[in-house]
Amino acid sequence: MARLGARLLVRDLTQLATPAAGPVPRRGVALAAVEVIDDAFVLCVGEHIELVGRMRDLPAIDGDVEELDGRGLCAVPGLVDCHMHPAWGGDRVDEFSLRAAGGSYEELHASGGGILSTVRATRALGAEALHARVARHAGWLLAHGTTTWEGKSGYGLDRETELESLRAVRDAGGSPTWLGAHSVPPEHDDADAYLDFALSEVLPEAARLAVAADVFLERGAFDATQARRYLEACRDAGLALRLHGDQFTESGAIPLAVDLGARSVDHLEATGDAGVRALAASDVVGVLLPASALFLDRPMPPGRALADAGAPIALATDFNPGSAFTTSLPLVCSLACTQLHLSPEEALSAVTVNAAHVLELAGDRGRIAPGLRADLTLLDAPDWRYLAYHLAGDVVAAVVRGGSLVVRR
Amino acid sequence: MARLGARLLVRDLTQLATPAAGPVPRRGVALAAVEVIDDAFVLCVGEHIELVGRMRDLPAIDGDVEELDGRGLCAVPGLVDCHMHPAWGGDRVDEFSLRAAGGSYEELHASGGGILSTVRATRALGAEALHARVARHAGWLLAHGTTTWEGKSGYGLDRETELESLRAVRDAGGSPTWLGAHSVPPEHDDADAYLDFALSEVLPEAARLAVAADVFLERGAFDATQARRYLEACRDAGLALRLHGDQFTESGAIPLAVDLGARSVDHLEATGDAGVRALAASDVVGVLLPASALFLDRPMPPGRALADAGAPIALATDFNPGSAFTTSLPLVCSLACTQLHLSPEEALSAVTVNAAHVLELAGDRGRIAPGLRADLTLLDAPDWRYLAYHLAGDVVAAVVRGGSLVVRR
Repeated sequence: MARLGARLLVRDLTQLATPAAGPVPRRGVALAAVEVIDDAFVLCVGEHIELVGRMRDLPAIDGDVEELDGRGLCAVPGLVDCHMHPAWGGDRVDEFSLRAAGGSYEELHASGGGILSTVRATRALGAEALHARVARHAGWLLAHGTTTWEGKSGYGLDRETELESLRAVRDAGGSPTWLGAHSVPPEHDDADAYLDFALSEVLPEAARLAVAADVFLERGAFDATQARRYLEACRDAGLALRLHGDQFTESGAIPLAVDLGARSVDHLEATGDAGVRALAASDVVGVLLPASALFLDRPMPPGRALADAGAPIALATDFNPGSAFTTSLPLVCSLACTQLHLSPEEALSAVTVNAAHVLELAGDRGRIAPGLRADLTLLDAPDWRYLAYHLAGDVVAAVVRGGSLVVRR
Repeated sequence: MARLGARLLVRDLTQLATPAAGPVPRRGVALAAVEVIDDAFVLCVGEHIELVGRMRDLPAIDGDVEELDGRGLCAVPGLVDCHMHPAWGGDRVDEFSLRAAGGSYEELHASGGGILSTVRATRALGAEALHARVARHAGWLLAHGTTTWEGKSGYGLDRETELESLRAVRDAGGSPTWLGAHSVPPEHDDADAYLDFALSEVLPEAARLAVAADVFLERGAFDATQARRYLEACRDAGLALRLHGDQFTESGAIPLAVDLGARSVDHLEATGDAGVRALAASDVVGVLLPASALFLDRPMPPGRALADAGAPIALATDFNPGSAFTTSLPLVCSLACTQLHLSPEEALSAVTVNAAHVLELAGDRGRIAPGLRADLTLLDAPDWRYLAYHLAGDVVAAVVRGGSLVVRR
C-alpha cells in the first residue's frame, strides 16, 4: 500500500491505453472506445491517479517523487478478473489427462470426479493450507497483470469450508462471492435438501463475508427453480447476484438473471439467438470465459454476436482446477480476439472497466484517469495491443497497484 | 557453457519425466512411452548428464559440486522447438486486429499484407538489428523452457537478408533452416523467376550456413512442381528437407515429402485420411503447429488420427509475427492435449525427442539419460503434466542448458 501522499511518476511510456470515460457499461454503450496516448506519463499520489497526459505536458513536480522508467512499455489499467475460483485443494491433472484421451467434462462430473473430487480435496486441506493456496493463486494473478479479482467459494459446500473460503479470498485481497450452489455434496439427498441446509446454516454468515452470490444453473447441478430460490434468498440477505448459465445447455439462466436483476450471467457457450437478444435488451453483463471453452474443447461463447447486439460483455479466466487452469487474462484477451472475434479494444474494455462494473467497482477502477485507483499493468511491448497479440508471452513487465510497484520483471 | 568437468547436481526433484529410451521415432514407435521417476536427481558433468536416478540411490560425490534444490520442481528434457521463424522486423499487430474483425489470413496475404509486409520490414532492419531481434526471441524461447530450436529465414527473400537471417540464427544458438521459398518477393515476375534467382544466387552460400531447407507449398506460394525443383536443388547441395504443407489446402506436400525423403512435413491442418495413411506409412515426421491454427482460428491438424495411425509426430510453436506470435511450447502442449487430444505423454515426446529427431539432433538430446546433453527444464509443479495442464502458467521455474543454470525465476 502506498504511503499517504507518496508519489510515483510513471514516465516516458511508449503508449497508454484506457477505456474512454463514459457511463459504466449499459445497453448500447460501445465497448470499443479506447483512448490511446503516445509518449505518456501517469502521476500517482498515494493510492490514486493524480494526472495523466503526454510527456510534453508533464508539469514540474516539486519534492520527493519516485520515478518508474516506462520506456519500451505500454500502460493499460490494472486488469480485473471478475470470474474466478481460487479456493480449492488438490488438482485435476489426472482428469485433464483422461479428458485428453476422450472423456467429456460432464461424464467425469457424473462419475464422481469433476467438482466433487475437488470438494473432497478442499475439505481435507484445513484452514491454513486453504489460505495459503488462495494467496498463491493471487500471486499468479498479479504476475499476469490482474490487480482486482473476484474469488468464489464453492469447493467446500459445508459450512466451515465455505466460510473459510470466503475469508481466504477476502484476506488475499479478492472480492468474495458465495458460490454456495456449485454442486450437491454427497451428504445431502438432493439439491433441494442441500439448499435447505445452505440457506439456513451458511447464508447468514456468508452474507456478512461475501459481496455476491452465484449458482451453477445446469443439468446435473441446479435447475431454474432451485436457482431462483437460492438467488432470491441471497438477494434478500443483501448479496449481489451472479449466475453460471448456458455452459452446456440453455436452462433458463438468462431470463432468470434478467428477472432478478443479476449483475451478470457467465459462460454462455450454449446461448442461442434469443438469449443474445434478451441479454442485449437488459442491463445484465454477459461474462465470457473462452479459456474454459478451450480447456474443455467446447464451443466458444457467441462473443461477436453479443457485442454486435449491444450486450454489455466482460471477459474472465474462470480459473479453477477442472475446466480452466489458468490465471492469465492476457491469454483470455488473445482468445477473445482469435476465437470470439472481438477487437483488442473490446477485449481491453471487457477485462477492465466492464469487469469492474460486474464487481460494482467501476466507480474507482477499470480505467486510467485522475481520481481513480492507481492500478496499472505495464506491458513489455511497442503497442498496447500486444496484450492480446503476444500469445502466452511474458508480456507483463510490471504492475502498479494502489500506487505501489508490486511486480517488476 | 559449463566448465569442462564442472558438476551440477539437481537434487530432490519431485518428479523427473523423460521419453523412454528406444530407437528414434519411426513408423510404429509409440509416442506415449514416458518414464517417470519420483524423488529424483540428475548429476551433470560438464555439458552432459552423468547419472540419473532416485535420491535414495544417489552415490556419495567427492569434490566440488554445485547443487540445485529441486524440491517442488519437476524435470523434463529441455524443450526442442523444431519449427520457428525468429528472423523478422516490424510486427503484424495491425493485421491481428483486422483479422479479429473478420479478415482471413489468405485475404490479408493476397492484399499485400501478410508475409510480404514482414519482408519489407525485415529488409529495412539492417544486420545489427536483425541479429538483436533473433537474440531477443531466443531469450523468450529460453524463458519458456526451450533449449534447442530451429530458426528459419524466409522474411528476407533477397540474398543479403536471407544469408544474414541464417547467420543471426546460428549466432543465437539455433539450427538454421533456409526457407528460401517462403513467398515470391515483388521484384520477381513469378515463382519460377524467383526460384531461378534463389537457387543460383542464394543457395550456394545458404547451403554453407544452413542445416536444412524449407518451402511453403500452398496456393498463392509455391506449387508442387516448384517445391520439388527447390527441394531437389537444396538436397543436392547437402541440406536436409522440410516442407510447409497442407496448411490451407492439400496440395501434394505429403507425397512429395515421402518421395524426397524429407525430415518432416509441417502444418497439416488440411490433411485428410489419405494423407494420414501416407504419412503413417513413411518415416517423415508430421510437425503439428496448433498455436498457428488457434491464432488464425483455423481447423486443428488431425493429431489424434496421426498418432492412432502410428505416424511419428512432433509439435512446435511456428513462432512468427503473422500467424503464431508465441514462443511457448508449454502452451503448445496445452493445445495438444485440449485441441488435438494427445496425451501429456505424447505431447512431451513430441516437443523433445521427436522434435530433436526432426532436427537430426536426437543422438544427443531430447531425453534425460546419461551421456546426453544436460538440457533440463524444471517445472514449478507437483506433477510433470502441469507442463500441459497449467495453461499459460508461469510453469518454467528454471532451465539448465549444457550443464549450466541459465534461467531461474
